[in-house]
Amino acid sequence: MNSPAFTPYYAVIFTSKLSNSEGYAEMAVEMEKLAKQQDGFIGIDSAREDVGITVSYWRDVESIKAWKENFAHLQAQKLGKEKWYESYSVRIAKVEREYGN
Amino acid sequence: MNSPAFTPYYAVIFTSKLSNSEGYAEMAVEMEKLAKQQDGFIGIDSAREDVGITVSYWRDVESIKAWKENFAHLQAQKLGKEKWYESYSVRIAKVEREYGN
Repeated sequence: MNSPAFTPYYAVIFTSKLSNSEGYAEMAVEMEKLAKQQDGFIGIDSAREDVGITVSYWRDVESIKAWKENFAHLQAQKLGKEKWYESYSVRIAKVEREYGN
Repeated sequence: MNSPAFTPYYAVIFTSKLSNSEGYAEMAVEMEKLAKQQDGFIGIDSAREDVGITVSYWRDVESIKAWKENFAHLQAQKLGKEKWYESYSVRIAKVEREYGN
C-alpha cells in the first residue's frame, strides 16, 4: 500500500505456510478483489517466499469483523484450514505511527 | 514467526520496493541476525515478490526505538535510502489479538 492513511487505523497481519497450492492463487485473487469492496478497507500488500505474508489495512476493528464474517470469505477460510494451510497466524494490530519516503 | 506471544506486543511492518538489489540480500541477512540479538526482539517474518514485506515483532516501543538507533542498523537505513529503495514504508503497530492453528 503506497498512500499513507491517518493513524490510528488497523492492520491484519496474516502469515501462512502452504501444504498444497492447488487453486490457492485463484482464491487469493478473488478474496483480494472482494476485500477491496468492503467498507473500511484501506489497502493491502502481499508477498510469498518460504512464508506468505498478507497485510491488509482497515479503518477500524468493526470493518475487520465485517470482512471476517463475509460469506465468501468464510468459505475461503474454511477451505484454507482444510486444504491449503500447513500453518497460519492472524494478528490484529493498531497502527500508531507510519513514515516512509 | 510461529510461536505466539502474549498480547499486547508490537509489530514493525516494513514494506519496500527495490530500485537496485546489489548487496541488498547480504545486508538483510546481517540485519536480521543483529535484530535477533536485541533486547525485546520476539520474531520476524519476511517475503519479497513485487513488494518486500518484513514484519518484526517486539516487546514494546522502547525496544523498537533502541533497534532503530542501533549503529549498524542506522548505516543500513542510510544505504537503503541512498541505494536500494525505490520506496519504503514503516508502520509501528500494537498487536492486540492473535490466533492461528
